[in-house]
Order: sequence, then structure tokens, then C-alpha cells
Amino acid sequence: MTHKIAVLPGDGIGPEIVEQAVRVLRALDQPFQIDEAKVGGAAFDAFEHPLPPATLALAKASSAVLFGAVGDWKYDSLPREFRPEQAILGLRREMGLFANFRPAILYPELANASSLKPEVVAGLDILILRELTGDIYFGKPRGVRTAEDGPFKGEREGYDTMRYAEPEVRRIAHLAFQAAMKRNKRLCSVDKANVLETSQFWRDIVIEVSQEYPDVALSHMYVDNAAMQLVRAPREFDVIVTGNLFGDILSDEASMLTGSIGMLPSASLNAAGQGLYEPSHGSAPDIAGKNIANPLATILSAAMLLRYSLDLSPLADRIEGAVRKVLADGLRTADIFEDGTTKVSTSEMGDAVLKAL
Amino acid sequence: MTHKIAVLPGDGIGPEIVEQAVRVLRALDQPFQIDEAKVGGAAFDAFEHPLPPATLALAKASSAVLFGAVGDWKYDSLPREFRPEQAILGLRREMGLFANFRPAILYPELANASSLKPEVVAGLDILILRELTGDIYFGKPRGVRTAEDGPFKGEREGYDTMRYAEPEVRRIAHLAFQAAMKRNKRLCSVDKANVLETSQFWRDIVIEVSQEYPDVALSHMYVDNAAMQLVRAPREFDVIVTGNLFGDILSDEASMLTGSIGMLPSASLNAAGQGLYEPSHGSAPDIAGKNIANPLATILSAAMLLRYSLDLSPLADRIEGAVRKVLADGLRTADIFEDGTTKVSTSEMGDAVLKAL
Ligand SMILES: CC(C)[C@H](C(=O)O)[C@@H](O)C(=O)O
Ligand SMILES: CC(C)[C@H](C(=O)O)[C@@H](O)C(=O)O
Repeated sequence: MTHKIAVLPGDGIGPEIVEQAVRVLRALDQPFQIDEAKVGGAAFDAFEHPLPPATLALAKASSAVLFGAVGDWKYDSLPREFRPEQAILGLRREMGLFANFRPAILYPELANASSLKPEVVAGLDILILRELTGDIYFGKPRGVRTAEDGPFKGEREGYDTMRYAEPEVRRIAHLAFQAAMKRNKRLCSVDKANVLETSQFWRDIVIEVSQEYPDVALSHMYVDNAAMQLVRAPREFDVIVTGNLFGDILSDEASMLTGSIGMLPSASLNAAGQGLYEPSHGSAPDIAGKNIANPLATILSAAMLLRYSLDLSPLADRIEGAVRKVLADGLRTADIFEDGTTKVSTSEMGDAVLKAL
Repeated sequence: MTHKIAVLPGDGIGPEIVEQAVRVLRALDQPFQIDEAKVGGAAFDAFEHPLPPATLALAKASSAVLFGAVGDWKYDSLPREFRPEQAILGLRREMGLFANFRPAILYPELANASSLKPEVVAGLDILILRELTGDIYFGKPRGVRTAEDGPFKGEREGYDTMRYAEPEVRRIAHLAFQAAMKRNKRLCSVDKANVLETSQFWRDIVIEVSQEYPDVALSHMYVDNAAMQLVRAPREFDVIVTGNLFGDILSDEASMLTGSIGMLPSASLNAAGQGLYEPSHGSAPDIAGKNIANPLATILSAAMLLRYSLDLSPLADRIEGAVRKVLADGLRTADIFEDGTTKVSTSEMGDAVLKAL
């Protein structure tokens, strides 16, 4: 069976890191059909839209999408609907990619990279499951209007709608409990139920779903407290499940705890098992084209792609093993370089992973 | 002139830490009229409401409120409107306390308390200005309804409204620029303008207001990135201004960077200069009544009260100097204790500050 993989390199360092991940996929010698298309600013430049219909169609027709990164300062002044980020929001919405898996893992070899003390983060391994197609990201109505009542009646106001429907909470909760079952059986649901109706609703449903997973220890935490506990004692978490907005903030905070966000992959899945796989870091336009970016998060995203969307776990294991090998061999791109290790370029890191495969 | 100060000790460790701060205020030998009232769970127990009318009236009639903390697990199952946190939301709303000043300062003596490496946090001194009466905290409509359209039409959904009106953004922006003028003249406005209409609106107004403060270097950052940068390199911030929800999350994250949240005061002001002053930490019901809680954040809140609401900066300086003295003398409550220092109780810490005054 031929697996269709769509490759969307995007902007900034996207193309150079995706190139290395594609080399790794090809080296596995599988019947993959790999097609590439433009996305983000690159697509805007070519087709005047960050997510052209052909790109979306290709993504939808594939088992999985390998995504680089989008965004560059030069698009900042475009109207919102043409900005590169709209491509990623569009892909999530159109493909129904509601479940975003964001592991935050500190590789033992990179323990020094963290801004936290080793005794606080050594061995860190948490999984954040962020709901990705609901919440205030897509809720309507939204816009700018004249306030119709309240103390600012008659004034212009910007507004957005936070919302979650019951089936949306239910399906992400099930995935979270299932993920916890495969790990240390501890799930923390993060919300702001002391203030938000959406959060109280979310919490009530998560509690209902928990009845079906008696082996998982469920806890609840307010988002402000979660932001603190991630700094104080991150290893106390196992799996965190939360909504789109809180997940955006907490998953980035959690990745930065490792000090090596250049190592962290992510997966965004829909109900059919299709997925979009991308590094947790951004497009870093300041270092684009210099062959110095770290391709490992993208290579590890390709491993997640094999495991989650193509059901090829043994191949994913091989890639992950190869990455661990190059780290153990002391190879480092500039972002994770430290004295006593060997600094390599983006493509040299790709070479090394290929060799270790 | 007699200054009226309302004292609301609240729940958990609230009473014991407030007691020490009141001792300090009385020791200044000023014509303060200090009146106490119940708030939070304590008020619910006595009057079946977390913010009884008499408490609210007292607070409104005072120049300043010294607030302890509210909340205890035993109230968790009450309907939302009776829970202790509603008292604090009610006070903010009814008194119009729109500007929340949350300093995150790492005292040199406590550098080890941080979970971050000393070279990352030593000398940390940032100020987060959080808007406190707008945003999704109070926006309407909110509740649970049946979805009327979209993919979950016909399903139950929880929803809330995020919103900011132009004058609300304008007034907090002015305070932020003024605060930056008194510090290092760098202001970072945090939003999620790549996704939220409210944020784009907020950003546009902040940029407009910036015209009046040409000496302040204004930058903008997305909230997810801010959550990361606070972990990576917190000292790159000077003043941060942001909305109610993002401010809730980021100010707690920032305080935890210091590792000594028991040291951090906060001030919430309205347009008339009335203020509510409270420690940044919570009610810690697990250690309540044991005389081991750290009263310094509350004592420092009393100092902020003198400076911001009573215009008595010299007295605030005296209190802050006394706190620095007891730290330099090696006195520590349990939360900040380390080898080589002297562990003291809540009341002993109060004694020491009084003596150092
Ligand atoms: C680019 C932006 C819209 C996006 C988000 O907020 O979801 C990004 O921050 C992410 O987390 O993938
Ligand atoms: C108790 C809660 C409503 C409150 C808030 O979210 O504002 C608290 O977390 C705070 O930051 O003062």
C-alpha cells in the first residue's frame, strides 16, 4: 500500500529543516508518495493566498502532512486573512485536526540547555494534549462593534467568543485518558472554571468521561496555577489536557522548560487518523537559509507521522533511535551547542541521522 | 487627615498574615482608621455571602483595602456565585479596580529559591500590569446554551465573551507607559493579535497611545511567546502590560520564576486612586493556623498601599527597608528557608520587621 504524504515546507527555516526530514523518510525505502506544495508566506508570494486551494486539496488527500513552519516579519502588515498563520489555522479547521499532541521531553544529553536547574527538570517527560479546532480560536461572533450596554455603552469594542460544545470536549477527553493509560496514568485537566462558564462546562464533561477510565488519576488545575507549577515542579505532570487557548500558552511554556525547543515535534490529528506533523518551534526568519537551524524536531515529527498516521511504529522507533544516537555522539546544531560537543550544520545533522539509521 | 483602611483577612492563612501587616501599619503611629470585615469563605460562613453588603460598603468607603486571601477546598462544591473567589471578582468590579500591578522581584538573598538557574534570574525585576475589570472575566453573554449553528449545531455548549472597549485599553495603556517612564522605559504589550479580534483592537490602541510616550520603547509579543520568554530570559522584560486573562496567567508564571511567591505584593487601583492590596500568593488552607506562613508579601502590600493610595512613600520605604533588613539578617519563614538561615514563624517574622522599622 502506497502512503500519500504531503510536504509543506513553508517559510523561514521551514524548507531547510523539512528537506532533512524528507531525506530521512526516503531513506526508509518505503512506498511513500511524497508531494510538496507551498504554504504560508511562500504561498502568498506565489498565489496571493497563504493556503491555496491546491495545497489544501493535497493535504486533505494525504494520509499525513509534514509541515515546516510559517511566518516572516515581511508579512506582518498584510490584512489578517492573508497572513501566513492563517494557513495553519485553515489546515486545522478544514482537516478537523482537533487533537494536538505536544510532548515536552528533556533529552539527558541536553540537560544543560534548560534555564531551569537540573534537579528540577532532569528526566522531564510530559505530554500536553491541546484541543485545536474549538475555543476562542474559531468561536463566533467576533470582530469590532459598538458596545450596546454596560459601562462602555456607545464605545467601540473588540470582541471574541470562547466556546466548547459537549462532543468536542468529550472526544479530546477520551484521547487524553487513552494517552494517560499508555503512560503513567495521571491526567491533569487545565481550565479556569472559577471564572469561565466554558471552563466549568469543560470540567463537568471531563469528569463524566473519567468514569470510563477508573485507572487514570484525574486532577483539575486552574490555568494560572498550571503556569506556575510548570515552572516550580514540571515533573509532577504526566499528561495535561486543555483547550485551544490555554494549550497554546502552556505547551509553549512547557517546551521552553527543556531549553531545547529545536528538539520537540508535534502531531495534530483528526478523527480519521489523518495528521499534520510539525516542529514545535517557529519559522525563525532571522536564521533562514544559513544552514544552521536544528532539523531534529522536524525529523522527530516525521517519526510521529509514521507512528500515528501510518501505523509504522517500528520505523518511528528507528528514527528516534537514530536521533538519540547522534545526540549521544555529541553532534549539536548551534541552538543546542555547548563546550565539548561538535557543532554541525542543518545538513550535516541530516547526514548524521541518515547514517545512524 | 485620617486615612480609612479596610482590612479584609479572608480565609486560610489570610488572618495570620494580615495580622502581621496590621501590626506594622499601627507601629507607624499614623492617624489611620483601620476597620476589619469578613470576606470570602469566612463571610459565607457568617453571612451566607462571600462579599456581604457591609464588607463591600466598608471597602468602598475606605482609601485602601488590605486584603489577605480567600478560598478553601471546603467551599469548592458551592454554586459558583457563593464561592470565595467571587468576593475578589466582586470587589474588583464594584470598586472599578482596573489596574493590577504585579511586581516580580527576586531578592538577592533568596536567589537560591528559584527553580531557574541563578544566571538566568539573578536581579530579576519586572512589573506586570494586568487589566483587571474587563476581558473575558466579565464579558457577556456567557453561560451554557444549545449551539445554533456550526458543526455542533443542536449540541449543548459552554461559552464566554472576551471583550475590550477602547477607553478600557486606553487607560491601562497610559498607566503602563507611565510606569515604564519611571523604570527602564521598555514596555511590552502582550496579546494574541494573530488570532483574536480583541487583541488586534488592543494592539492598535496601545500603538496609538504610544505616540504620547516617545521615550518608551514599545514592543508587542504574542502570549504564547511571552510564556516562553519568561522562562528563557525573564530579565529581558521591564514592564509588561496585558489583558485580564493573559495577565492572570503570566503574572503567576512570573512570580513563580522568583521561587519566593511568599515575598510578592500586589496592588489593584481604580481611577480615583483607591486600591486593594494583597499578597500574590493564595490562601494556602493546608498550612492555615499553624503560624508558619510568610507574612512578608502582605507586609509589602501594606507598603504599596501607603505609596499608591495614601501618598506616604517615605513610610513605604521604611517598611521595605525593614523587610530587606530581616532578610539580610538571615530570618526566613519555612517557604524560603535554606541551610544557614534562621527559621522563624509568622509572628516572629512580624516581630522582626517591627523591630527593624
Ligand atoms: C500561529 C498561531 C496561530 C498558532 C496558534 O496560536 O495556535 C501557533 O502559536 C501554534 O501554537 O501553533
Ligand atoms: C481567584 C481568581 C478569580 C483570581 C483571578 O483569576 O483573577 C486569581 O487567580 C487572581 O489572579 O487574583
